[in-house]
Amino acid sequence: MLQDPSVKYKAFPPINLPNRQWPSKVLNKPPRWLSTDLRDGNQSLPDPMSVEEKKIYFKKLVEIGFKEIEVAFPSASQTDFDFTRWTIENCPDDVRIQVLSPCREDLIRRTIESLQGAKKATVHIYLATSDCFRRVVYKNTKEESIELAVKCAKLIKSLTKDVKSETSWNFEFSPEFFSDSGLDFTIEICNNVAKAWEPTVEEPIIFNLPATVEMSTPNVYADQIEYFSSHINDREKICISLHPHNDRGCAVAAAELGQMAGADRVEGCLFGNGERTGNVDLVTLALNLYTQGYSPKLDFSDISSVIDIVERCNKIPVHPRAPYGGSLVVCAFSGSHQDAIKKGFVDHEQQLKNTKDLTWEVPYLPLDPKDIGRTYEAIIRVNSQSGKGGSAWVILRNLELDLPRGLQIDFSKVVQDVADSKGRELTNLELCELFKNNYCILWDGINDKYPYKLIDYSLSSSKDKNRSISVDLEVDGKSTTINGSGNGPISAFINAIKNNLSIDLDVKNYHEHSLGDSSNSKAATYIEVSVDGKDKIWGVGINEDVSFASFLSLVSILNGLKK
Amino acid sequence: MLQDPSVKYKAFPPINLPNRQWPSKVLNKPPRWLSTDLRDGNQSLPDPMSVEEKKIYFKKLVEIGFKEIEVAFPSASQTDFDFTRWTIENCPDDVRIQVLSPCREDLIRRTIESLQGAKKATVHIYLATSDCFRRVVYKNTKEESIELAVKCAKLIKSLTKDVKSETSWNFEFSPEFFSDSGLDFTIEICNNVAKAWEPTVEEPIIFNLPATVEMSTPNVYADQIEYFSSHINDREKICISLHPHNDRGCAVAAAELGQMAGADRVEGCLFGNGERTGNVDLVTLALNLYTQGYSPKLDFSDISSVIDIVERCNKIPVHPRAPYGGSLVVCAFSGSHQDAIKKGFVDHEQQLKNTKDLTWEVPYLPLDPKDIGRTYEAIIRVNSQSGKGGSAWVILRNLELDLPRGLQIDFSKVVQDVADSKGRELTNLELCELFKNNYCILWDGINDKYPYKLIDYSLSSSKDKNRSISVDLEVDGKSTTINGSGNGPISAFINAIKNNLSIDLDVKNYHEHSLGDSSNSKAATYIEVSVDGKDKIWGVGINEDVSFASFLSLVSILNGLKK
Repeated sequence: MLQDPSVKYKAFPPINLPNRQWPSKVLNKPPRWLSTDLRDGNQSLPDPMSVEEKKIYFKKLVEIGFKEIEVAFPSASQTDFDFTRWTIENCPDDVRIQVLSPCREDLIRRTIESLQGAKKATVHIYLATSDCFRRVVYKNTKEESIELAVKCAKLIKSLTKDVKSETSWNFEFSPEFFSDSGLDFTIEICNNVAKAWEPTVEEPIIFNLPATVEMSTPNVYADQIEYFSSHINDREKICISLHPHNDRGCAVAAAELGQMAGADRVEGCLFGNGERTGNVDLVTLALNLYTQGYSPKLDFSDISSVIDIVERCNKIPVHPRAPYGGSLVVCAFSGSHQDAIKKGFVDHEQQLKNTKDLTWEVPYLPLDPKDIGRTYEAIIRVNSQSGKGGSAWVILRNLELDLPRGLQIDFSKVVQDVADSKGRELTNLELCELFKNNYCILWDGINDKYPYKLIDYSLSSSKDKNRSISVDLEVDGKSTTINGSGNGPISAFINAIKNNLSIDLDVKNYHEHSLGDSSNSKAATYIEVSVDGKDKIWGVGINEDVSFASFLSLVSILNGLKK
Repeated sequence: MLQDPSVKYKAFPPINLPNRQWPSKVLNKPPRWLSTDLRDGNQSLPDPMSVEEKKIYFKKLVEIGFKEIEVAFPSASQTDFDFTRWTIENCPDDVRIQVLSPCREDLIRRTIESLQGAKKATVHIYLATSDCFRRVVYKNTKEESIELAVKCAKLIKSLTKDVKSETSWNFEFSPEFFSDSGLDFTIEICNNVAKAWEPTVEEPIIFNLPATVEMSTPNVYADQIEYFSSHINDREKICISLHPHNDRGCAVAAAELGQMAGADRVEGCLFGNGERTGNVDLVTLALNLYTQGYSPKLDFSDISSVIDIVERCNKIPVHPRAPYGGSLVVCAFSGSHQDAIKKGFVDHEQQLKNTKDLTWEVPYLPLDPKDIGRTYEAIIRVNSQSGKGGSAWVILRNLELDLPRGLQIDFSKVVQDVADSKGRELTNLELCELFKNNYCILWDGINDKYPYKLIDYSLSSSKDKNRSISVDLEVDGKSTTINGSGNGPISAFINAIKNNLSIDLDVKNYHEHSLGDSSNSKAATYIEVSVDGKDKIWGVGINEDVSFASFLSLVSILNGLKK
């Protein structure tokens, strides 16, 4: 048994914020995005990226539209230093290169050396400010922390702002373990750092407030951000940046509520890579904004290519259930879901046609898969839990056959039995083959499979406005002609069957539609009959000639009875 | 490029809740948990569970401590019906079996048939109440929806409560697409259903409020729950249940904020299985509560066995970064993290020893891995981004050698070079071998590897309180004896080396500690010397005899110079 946690763990103390504003706010614009895939993401990989992989990844980040990219820890190794140089030499002018350094003079000097010649660069330093960290790891006082942070800010200023430089320099300070640091101390250290750096409204200083470890419900993080935002000096010269981790599974929520609470910027990784449970997932954040009607200013219209590169370079798979990108996210397996989605697509197409209303409102699909380069075809897969809707959809998409409701129900039972006995879902190909075989459908003119073959027919009117039919059949390889008459071609054929083959069919249902748009397109007919007054059975016929198609549907019933 | 979303998507309308209370609330107790792994989870699997797998899964759910388990959709197939029967015959008396049915009389009758003889059972029916769903899928009015729901509630009442039965019956109603349904209509339909069912305070009716598709930030869901909770009639006879999905990656947050907003119960799946992006993850919710000092009343003390069964039956892997359960979650790769964790463990052990304070406060680890049956050993793995802390930790855990700080830094450079050139992390075994080889350490008495071997020594005092030493060496297989004196054994040995081998060593650093607790334990010595006044080099010696160990550390330096 799990031991009693009360002896070992403490509840995170709530923030006293009686007049909080963020719960009434709404997210309606993108933040300044920073991708830290190549720094925070890469340092957490079991197999870090090779230099070649980093280059591919960097190019993709630029292509997606990131304007701020943290690329390395250049003072940590020659590899990191060299890669920083490569990004500076290979990035578009509007992309800002960011690098990280601890608060140590020699490392800061080396870091700034790595950025020489950049068009836009951000120097990012961090210092742990939490009590736990200062006690256990650094063993320094609050005053010493402030002194060190200010010293480093001044050093960076003297190495960048105070010298002639063609670089647009930004400065970012992260009070590490912000969420566990005590708000008033964090604000004190940040005020001191800002004073040393002297930011402007045009070029604000970035205070990055990491939930280095997620320790509370996301509303508490939002409270902390709102408190910080409303208590820091010269707010208009400050860019508040979020850096949530996902230890409690709430990083996306923390980033969203944190923006509502006043933050201007978000640091994270594609598909939430990063130490332990990862950084906040920027794909989810961006597409969450998109589905609310606001452009994220990041382009995930070809999400598969993003997934390819992320998986190749990180060597960690995107989970099948990851929002937006997961392989199972645009699938539905349950019958009621499949049915609703099918109806939603039909409704959406009608709306488009009738009112030009583009509004996306399809049950169970918060995003049009097309928008991220995924296809409708992949949406519905069929297993024993699926109802009629799923398999009917697959038949419609693959064979162009729009099954009538009764046939959908009939076929869904067949599917359920087969899927149950296989114990797995059926592929689209399997479903199509099952459909053709179960209803003994002639397909692509291949005619050898079943005992009854329809060779030809001739129709004539008789005097009492009845129709007479003469049908050439092959039965088990022997030619035969059957004759009958009725008030239409079908009843004539049915009478011919009754007279010649002693099978009594009675039509219960009849549907017909054309396949495709062209003038020489085929027709499909669906017919349900009772046999000898008892069992009901469906037949399907497809042919360029509508009448031939309807006769084929009856022949398919004859073949079905012989199975 | 992604198209402009404003033509296609609308922002989710906020809830007008000026006096909201939930942001000031704190989660401090577990909800009524319901696992729907076998129903909602199973229906969303590409390969649904076999009956055998369902049984294994059910037993594990019982073992974890779930008291409410939704097992099937018994009217959907014979397999589901039979499995429901099996659970009733095989579950402990205190576990309540729940099954789902649509609002159709024949299916409800079949559903209740499946529950006969249960000790405790919940009949769960659902009806989509959202405008979109009613318009596109059901094509019915609000009034018709209310009528149907009331009719079904009365039918179930007549089949259960109104008949003699030894079963404790619960009734659950899900207004499907709750979050998109309009609060006032949802409350109206629920009030009508409650009136038909006539719940009591002791046996409340369950209103399950699904975010069938997650459509807004989680604070909006919490607003909806608070509004529902404060406007529904006879609140004390109502159990408000949450059923969040994860389309926007915020299901865990929605469940937590929803409980703060008044919900009593949560439905979800282990590791967040379920349609598309999944149901809310019950493992994360439970352990989130645990790390705040409140018992979740679910047992994940052996999380690996839970993962085994979930992965085997769902055939979907738990993601390496899944909170708590993911394979990478108790690892740290970056040097600063590793260093802090190492210090945190030392601090924690000291706290335990000195003050018996059990409080868990280790940087970067929100949960003691031991509590969920995971081990410390797995925590740190070493790659080129790791600093000194990580490799030092591995050496400590595997070789019992507590490296002095200077040696940690020296070794971390060696590790970085090797990991950089390999382009991957090093295994613990590789690290240990690298350490032994780099410092030419004799290990397990194997003495043949290096040119210098220490055979024996004798020490004597000379008259001026100096020590004289005579050392028997083998150099490239030839025996030799060297002599020297100094103010202690080490300086005597160093003088012997200078006199006989013309190598001038000067001691810069010396550390020594015992290995293990037993009286016949070995000693380890670490020595840093400058060579001929220039290069500094570390040596390491291990032996039962402390003096012999220190001489071995000098011999390891001689061997290092010959490399």
